[in-house]
Amino acid sequence: MTQPVRVAVPGSVGVVETRVIDLPDPVPLDCGRTLAPVRVAYETYGTLAPARDNVILVCHALSGDAHAAGLAARPPAEGTRDGFRADERDGPARKALGWWDGMIGPGKAFDTDRFFVVSSNLLGGCRGTTGPGSTNPETGRPFGADFPVITVADMVRVQRALLDALGIARLAAVAGGSLGGMQALEWAVRYPGDVEAIIPIASTHALHPQGVAWNAIARNAITADPDWQGGHYYGTGRAPHGGMGVARMVGHVTYLSAASMQGKFGRRLQEGEDIAYDVTRAEFEVESYLRHQAASFVRRFDANTYLYLSRALTYFDLARQHGDGSLERAVEGVSARTLLIAFSSDWLYPPSGSEALAAALRTHGHEVELQVIDAPYGHDCFLLEEARQTPMIRDFLLKEPATTA
Amino acid sequence: MTQPVRVAVPGSVGVVETRVIDLPDPVPLDCGRTLAPVRVAYETYGTLAPARDNVILVCHALSGDAHAAGLAARPPAEGTRDGFRADERDGPARKALGWWDGMIGPGKAFDTDRFFVVSSNLLGGCRGTTGPGSTNPETGRPFGADFPVITVADMVRVQRALLDALGIARLAAVAGGSLGGMQALEWAVRYPGDVEAIIPIASTHALHPQGVAWNAIARNAITADPDWQGGHYYGTGRAPHGGMGVARMVGHVTYLSAASMQGKFGRRLQEGEDIAYDVTRAEFEVESYLRHQAASFVRRFDANTYLYLSRALTYFDLARQHGDGSLERAVEGVSARTLLIAFSSDWLYPPSGSEALAAALRTHGHEVELQVIDAPYGHDCFLLEEARQTPMIRDFLLKEPATTA
Repeated sequence: MTQPVRVAVPGSVGVVETRVIDLPDPVPLDCGRTLAPVRVAYETYGTLAPARDNVILVCHALSGDAHAAGLAARPPAEGTRDGFRADERDGPARKALGWWDGMIGPGKAFDTDRFFVVSSNLLGGCRGTTGPGSTNPETGRPFGADFPVITVADMVRVQRALLDALGIARLAAVAGGSLGGMQALEWAVRYPGDVEAIIPIASTHALHPQGVAWNAIARNAITADPDWQGGHYYGTGRAPHGGMGVARMVGHVTYLSAASMQGKFGRRLQEGEDIAYDVTRAEFEVESYLRHQAASFVRRFDANTYLYLSRALTYFDLARQHGDGSLERAVEGVSARTLLIAFSSDWLYPPSGSEALAAALRTHGHEVELQVIDAPYGHDCFLLEEARQTPMIRDFLLKEPATTA
Repeated sequence: MTQPVRVAVPGSVGVVETRVIDLPDPVPLDCGRTLAPVRVAYETYGTLAPARDNVILVCHALSGDAHAAGLAARPPAEGTRDGFRADERDGPARKALGWWDGMIGPGKAFDTDRFFVVSSNLLGGCRGTTGPGSTNPETGRPFGADFPVITVADMVRVQRALLDALGIARLAAVAGGSLGGMQALEWAVRYPGDVEAIIPIASTHALHPQGVAWNAIARNAITADPDWQGGHYYGTGRAPHGGMGVARMVGHVTYLSAASMQGKFGRRLQEGEDIAYDVTRAEFEVESYLRHQAASFVRRFDANTYLYLSRALTYFDLARQHGDGSLERAVEGVSARTLLIAFSSDWLYPPSGSEALAAALRTHGHEVELQVIDAPYGHDCFLLEEARQTPMIRDFLLKEPATTA
């Protein structure tokens, strides 16, 4: 996702530390394999109420991490091998504000004066939670492509186990954008008794085929790079940066809208007033921007994590997984109140997905609020349109009995 | 472009042969270099009128060639090195119908009972016309990345020289889709006295920044492939097929619409009823389709040609090149009648481009007809929606005095 440049505001949660926890039990996966040990990196913001009833779980998207709010205290804890040199992990990006800092903090949408917010790095991640770069106990070397293929349900199982380890039985809410919204939906379907409300933002019950295609192209770009080495590139001194860069570029354009790119770049040239007659140089501003995004992404993100998370979000399909093909049947057992937020210009996760979800939930009389925000920034709106989401989320959460505890 | 499977119809121009011609003079290029010798591959359909006033030039798009109509008699003439083995060039694709066969022939939109249709492979191409795979006379080896960077104007200069060599001074019309439509526009601006009508279809005066981005991503995928070898891969036994495949996938998705992909693929799996838990396998039908498209494209198309033509269509900007930034000024001198056809679902070359062109032409009182066809297949409509384009083009051409000769 594009992250706008932000400065710490008075409502910041301050300096936060990413902690890690080793889950006590093996995690059974959808694919039939069992994963152990599993380490989870997480952060918390706010104070856990004595009744432990004020917990909100925030779920990140494809390229996110546990650092959702505040200023990072230090790079992720050691002990996770993720294919990056320490000096790359320790770079300026790690000192930055969390990816959803505008939404989480005192007086913000997820108000840390009321709520205890938990944010964890996803299973399969490269930011402290067990993933393809972690050590395979069977070989003593990084899993690489031997890491089990995971699903959104598996990510949610790990979140459930993390919360168990933290002594948290019930959630006042689960919220997230994009892949994070899929996790919120999976929570509501899989653990209906454990979650009082969900807030899936710019998300869907199943990615449409064009979205499946973009993800397949991104994965193909990575696996076609000889430096991917069949997924076993850790420790070889080579990583599929070329392919990852292309994958990131594809992703990046799908996160924006054509109109926002027109407004942001037009056809302006990077240098001078005339074209340079060069096939390989980045001449247009938009070309230079994409290269910059790609170059910074490959320094901070692991290619195998990209592959696994992309596969998981492509697989996600509530109807197939929980309803024998019927979305209505899949959401029948949901008991959580639902706030769906979508953005008019989001063509990767278009409002139609949220509309289908709202309709399916309403067939059972479930409480659903659907907000389609008219905004031009495409899928990235969920990170950018904080001001307009805030009152929607605050009002929705205020209705929740747990928030008054 | 996706080309639907077609069978020869009674209105076919029959078996045609691709001919080549060596231009007598060096070609001066926009970049300041001069290219010589230049060979052009072309086909013709119909009969040249004694007055030589019934000529229509048809211009192909990024991945096309001179074989626009009829059945190919044989593979392109020898003498052009394009990075392909002969057995690949001679494959089934070369026996196929031309890429616009539904539009060119007796009684068709470009009616060969009335018109003499000329179709040539573009400068920079890999299908018989001089391009990056051709021999560099200075080294005796293929140009590769030493081929001069070309523009749409350069392509049109070569077409002008081809027609000169064929003894054709004036054109009744220039027509083409996508990059082909850019050539038609360039003809009308560059040689206003030589062209009576233009028919730019699914085209634009300047690609919008999202389109610039997709093209940049495709080029990056190619140049990031180590087998590209800085552009000098000919004769090495290696070609950047991985990167080209990714480039083709990106292009392919931009040629379709989200709705047509939903209709064509949905989220159907390629095999079985459940996911296989595999990160690298093509599991969804749409994933398998993209791989197939990529695999067949890399066999028939040269990566450097892709780079050069993609760069040229990205550069194309009538306002910058001919109007000091003003589209109105750029088209002031146009004398050709104009038929613009656009498609409602085409998001790569959206109707807004044709609308801007129509408005600019009308400020000068130029004769313009704009047809926006409501059709769901995206940019590929220009190849698929033949039945609906036909009467528009036929009626438009009937108004042309030259057609009655």
